[in-house]
Amino acid sequence: MTETALKSWAEAAPRLIAVASGREAADMVIRQGVWVNVQSRELLPNHDLAIADGRIAYVGPDAGHCTGPETQVIEAKGRYMLPGLCDGHMHIESGMLTPAEFARAVIPHGTTTMFTDPHEIANVMGLAGVRLMHDEAMLQPVNIFTQMPSCAPSAPGLETTGVELGPDDVAEAMGWPGIVGLGEMMNFPGVIAGDRKMLAEMAATQAAGKVVGGHYASPDLGPPFHAYAAGGPADDHEGTAEDDAIARVRQGMRAMLRLGSAWYDVERQITAVTERGLDPRNFILCTDDCHSGTLVNEGHMNRVVRHAIACGCDPLVALQMATVNTASHFGLERELGSIAPGRRADVILSSDLRELPIEVVIARGQVVAEDGQIAVDCPHLEWPDAARSSVNLGKTLTAADFEIAAPSGANHVRAKVIGVVENQAPTKALSAELPVADGLVEATGEVCQIALVERHRGTGGVVNAFVQGFGYSGPMAMASTVAHDSHHMIVVGTSREDMALAANRLGEVGGGVVLFADGEEQALVELPIAGLMSDDKAERVAAKAEALGAAMRKAGCTLNNAYMQHSLLALVVIPELRISDKGLVDVRTFELVPVIEEVLE
Amino acid sequence: MTETALKSWAEAAPRLIAVASGREAADMVIRQGVWVNVQSRELLPNHDLAIADGRIAYVGPDAGHCTGPETQVIEAKGRYMLPGLCDGHMHIESGMLTPAEFARAVIPHGTTTMFTDPHEIANVMGLAGVRLMHDEAMLQPVNIFTQMPSCAPSAPGLETTGVELGPDDVAEAMGWPGIVGLGEMMNFPGVIAGDRKMLAEMAATQAAGKVVGGHYASPDLGPPFHAYAAGGPADDHEGTAEDDAIARVRQGMRAMLRLGSAWYDVERQITAVTERGLDPRNFILCTDDCHSGTLVNEGHMNRVVRHAIACGCDPLVALQMATVNTASHFGLERELGSIAPGRRADVILSSDLRELPIEVVIARGQVVAEDGQIAVDCPHLEWPDAARSSVNLGKTLTAADFEIAAPSGANHVRAKVIGVVENQAPTKALSAELPVADGLVEATGEVCQIALVERHRGTGGVVNAFVQGFGYSGPMAMASTVAHDSHHMIVVGTSREDMALAANRLGEVGGGVVLFADGEEQALVELPIAGLMSDDKAERVAAKAEALGAAMRKAGCTLNNAYMQHSLLALVVIPELRISDKGLVDVRTFELVPVIEEVLE
Repeated sequence: MTETALKSWAEAAPRLIAVASGREAADMVIRQGVWVNVQSRELLPNHDLAIADGRIAYVGPDAGHCTGPETQVIEAKGRYMLPGLCDGHMHIESGMLTPAEFARAVIPHGTTTMFTDPHEIANVMGLAGVRLMHDEAMLQPVNIFTQMPSCAPSAPGLETTGVELGPDDVAEAMGWPGIVGLGEMMNFPGVIAGDRKMLAEMAATQAAGKVVGGHYASPDLGPPFHAYAAGGPADDHEGTAEDDAIARVRQGMRAMLRLGSAWYDVERQITAVTERGLDPRNFILCTDDCHSGTLVNEGHMNRVVRHAIACGCDPLVALQMATVNTASHFGLERELGSIAPGRRADVILSSDLRELPIEVVIARGQVVAEDGQIAVDCPHLEWPDAARSSVNLGKTLTAADFEIAAPSGANHVRAKVIGVVENQAPTKALSAELPVADGLVEATGEVCQIALVERHRGTGGVVNAFVQGFGYSGPMAMASTVAHDSHHMIVVGTSREDMALAANRLGEVGGGVVLFADGEEQALVELPIAGLMSDDKAERVAAKAEALGAAMRKAGCTLNNAYMQHSLLALVVIPELRISDKGLVDVRTFELVPVIEEVLE
Repeated sequence: MTETALKSWAEAAPRLIAVASGREAADMVIRQGVWVNVQSRELLPNHDLAIADGRIAYVGPDAGHCTGPETQVIEAKGRYMLPGLCDGHMHIESGMLTPAEFARAVIPHGTTTMFTDPHEIANVMGLAGVRLMHDEAMLQPVNIFTQMPSCAPSAPGLETTGVELGPDDVAEAMGWPGIVGLGEMMNFPGVIAGDRKMLAEMAATQAAGKVVGGHYASPDLGPPFHAYAAGGPADDHEGTAEDDAIARVRQGMRAMLRLGSAWYDVERQITAVTERGLDPRNFILCTDDCHSGTLVNEGHMNRVVRHAIACGCDPLVALQMATVNTASHFGLERELGSIAPGRRADVILSSDLRELPIEVVIARGQVVAEDGQIAVDCPHLEWPDAARSSVNLGKTLTAADFEIAAPSGANHVRAKVIGVVENQAPTKALSAELPVADGLVEATGEVCQIALVERHRGTGGVVNAFVQGFGYSGPMAMASTVAHDSHHMIVVGTSREDMALAANRLGEVGGGVVLFADGEEQALVELPIAGLMSDDKAERVAAKAEALGAAMRKAGCTLNNAYMQHSLLALVVIPELRISDKGLVDVRTFELVPVIEEVLE
């Protein structure tokens, strides 16, 4: 049953009432499970559940009165019946998968509701891209609500996106059926400064009665934080410390605690509940960004809930943070997020509340997965040509495009270097002494080159700088058209020849990630849709990504989530030092800065 | 600042941001109080609060950066700063006061938000009456949200209201600015039976994204209750036992616990939280019905919160039940109910969290009461003539109109008697042996007569029956045009002559309550607006009501809240036996039943 086929509660009410009172038979009955009640925060053994028209009609001690000869009966046999899990904030594109394939990958893990911000495709294709994601989301057998991207570009003046979005786009999107609010307002300096465009986007969202997502990526909890909260964002997932979570909740925002493929922000913040004893109602679990490999090998929201429990959170409280808390936040508490009458019948059967094995998944009253296997179709949209031809380099690149000229006469220079930090999104603004050879500054030792290659308008523009922390050795280069947030192309390498080869290869295949070493292609993940996503299955994308990871390790990279670190190096909204199509950006001051700091000799 | 003058958060955001960040001065700063944080459930000493444009701009350790020379500074001096109190469900008419005078009475008690269902006037004047209440509510300096009455008549076929409401009226009202949802759906048998009109009213409410109020006044928690929950009501305040509250919360409804002038339903239900440990988020405190005397002498929501605390509830949890829980339920958590940025600046200063003395009340950034004294104007609507001429008896009544003829030849009969139960809304269906004199059944001993006098259409109709439990002795009669829910006129008396005098007197003054004894008027409360309300001050109405109570006691009545018991005797939605303009109603079966059960001799 797709979103459009699902009856509203009001439409279904006559049948739900008839079933609950025993006048009509249910479509499905689940017998004798432990009702995980996230409203009362109780475990209630020996309960039956009756479903009609995709919604819950009855939960009580005995559904015998609403069981007929045609009713599908599932025996829970004492297993837990819990609400389908909700991801409070995420980007589907981070899985390198289209919404359909993302849904297919996460449904067996018990995720039945996602609040997704198609921010990545918005930077490439604008509102048209958002609509494509929205439309494919609406075809799925689970609930995928769209948050309208707020910041394309994320940092106006510091980067150039494929298309820009503004308040009129936001106002238009608020009328679409699957739009639930505004995606993370990451231009927090703009909000604090009273930027009229940012405020107009938030106002358009509030006028529609929808939720403004937040993103305050600063450790400063003083007046700037208060000013941001006063601006209207209703949640934030950028906290990394206990004080961050506490501050957000106290100011009437929801603290979203994330465990993504590379985000580990639950453990340090959940102590606000487990040790400091804050009311848990305003805490929500989310993933933000998950790779296909994580989805295939580790799970999705079940992984996050399991982790929260392992961090000491009461299992029922952790489940509330991934069900009713999330639904309440988005004004959907009467629609989903708990096993209660009228709600969408999104139910998981599991035999253990701590390890959370996902044994049966029911969405809108239909069995959608069993024992880890998808049991339902996840329909694809017909993606238009515009979405499949988004990489436009304007020319064939050569090694010369990646040269960094030294000031005339210099032999050694001090250069700014982007310092990658293991397991963290923020980078360090480092500097290094680098030698000059033939008039070019050369990366040596830990330092290698990084380039931002323009790919939206075919300008042929290349910005060059330095990065360290990957550990690459030997001649190599890795390129990616996933390059948050404006998604040009990031190339990191020790060899300018390999950098050119890698960049040109992605131009050929319409985007993706590729690694070259010694002039040979080592691994390639094709991402033909907007240069961000594959419409292939998660398992195959994960296998290619795994091969890419292996190639990165072979090239000397020892980071966890090395690929994600690569793809975030142009994210000019998170400190400290980043690269964009306009140059090197100091995100502490939101200024463009020169690569060469000084001539040393 | 009235509702219409208050800027929305989005409109105020530029200023709120500027104040929070220190670029502009606040309108008001409250210094150094204990921040009662109902979001995190914490007490946070030494906090400042800054207000601009009627909304909260900043709450933090020091508002010095947003304090200017024009800023009004209030020193909290270590007192508690708590959010203004919310009444989750109530009927203004029960105070016998118009919205303006009700607001004036409750503001000094710290009530800054009310969710009111003008169900009483709706039964008299239909949608026009609802609009008048709504319009006066919108003029007030505090927040009065209107729930569109759902059931006029409450029990179709069993009573005749002044005007009937239907789904089209509901749909129309949903477009009014102050409408927050549908008022209590008390036709619960209709919902359970799938009544199309009731379902259409709920559907119109849900289509508008608003809240359907519930009213399930039955102890049966089996399939009928489940069917009602499946129909869509989102809350219920009719529970009287712990199991009632638990069942509602488990089924995803909010349990509203009420302490009215005559409702004592908090103590027995709050144990669901205090002893059974249920998550308190779905519990809400309300008054439902408060007399002016209660408002003048005891308080309003402060009385309810204080009582919940006295029942063993943690003060912070009790305050959540009267602030953020209520706001969340109505989708207003971002608008009010907590002291957090962007919310309406509704703040109470109090020096004790258990006794809850209300020392300063601020609403929308304005001091509205101090030390129990109102400090602001509560504007009156110009009530039209139609509202002031609602009592139409069609004739002058005589003692003969109150005769109950015995079956021919009978000397003694067994008659049904409405049994009033101390401190409870439900009545008992009793029976009594009564003598016959001159062909008329005579009330004797504990039993006296009750009559329902038609007053909307001037039909001259009078329905007669028996009641016991008031304790009246000597010739007397008491009449009231407050006669829930269809608000004809209820006359109770031991003397048919006094019954006629009392009824005619109310016809003269346009409605109210009057007591006659031995042919003399003992006390009168004039309620000229719809026969339900006075636009006089609460103190004067309370004094007259007190004089009426004294007259009732002098006539032998020993009940608590005797007047309310009187006025509920026509409430044909609460068991067991009631009277309506159509006859005697057995509310257990929703059937009209004869007064005389059998001839005994």
